[in-house]
Amino acid sequence: VIQIHRRWLKALKGIEGFSHLIVVFWLDRAHKPDMQIHPRGQKGIPWVGYLATRTPHRANPIGLTVVRLLNRKGTRLTVKGLDAWDGTPILDIKPYTRKDAVPRFRMPGWVRLLDRLETDPLRRYAEAAP
Amino acid sequence: VIQIHRRWLKALKGIEGFSHLIVVFWLDRAHKPDMQIHPRGQKGIPWVGYLATRTPHRANPIGLTVVRLLNRKGTRLTVKGLDAWDGTPILDIKPYTRKDAVPRFRMPGWVRLLDRLETDPLRRYAEAAP
Repeated sequence: VIQIHRRWLKALKGIEGFSHLIVVFWLDRAHKPDMQIHPRGQKGIPWVGYLATRTPHRANPIGLTVVRLLNRKGTRLTVKGLDAWDGTPILDIKPYTRKDAVPRFRMPGWVRLLDRLETDPLRRYAEAAP
Repeated sequence: VIQIHRRWLKALKGIEGFSHLIVVFWLDRAHKPDMQIHPRGQKGIPWVGYLATRTPHRANPIGLTVVRLLNRKGTRLTVKGLDAWDGTPILDIKPYTRKDAVPRFRMPGWVRLLDRLETDPLRRYAEAAP
């Protein structure tokens, strides 16, 4: 559940016309970044720069996640897929549009390896995705 | 072209394994948001809340654009599709992954109308997109 301050109630008008949103949030529990990391701590994956990963530990600790909007009641948005700790401050909400949906894209091999190692279903890629 | 500070050179290692990036930037020329707007000033489209649009004029002026990474030379990234003014401060770069690519999503009718009115090719949706 995302709770928007009541001050912005009117700014939400029409948001329920979108099935998906991009939630931008402040990673308030992150620490300073390490320049290079083993993605998700997997020692079997070679060091990569943190900017080539989605680690929360970044120079500017801004997180973003694409979520499905299930419903809105006033300033209360119920969403699916929000990959953030409870209580994380929300910076912005943006509607998901065609420019965000890349039909074909390339990723390095270690991402696929990570996905096979992932046990948290929230973090697992949907089978339907490209 | 995105110029990353040389301090973060090592943090870019491996980023060229991704074809697409999410660029997060500070909308330094935006003004305070209007609660509701006609999207892109089109009077023919009814008022919607700014959070249901991608206007740069937001409570937290953070912009994001999905770009194609054409090449990297050190801290210099050449990209395609960056919808930001020259000199805009970059906050973060994230690799585009499967969780960002929603295969099916819904948008309100006014988005399609906007797209027909759009003349700037950078802002036009690619034909290949869903």
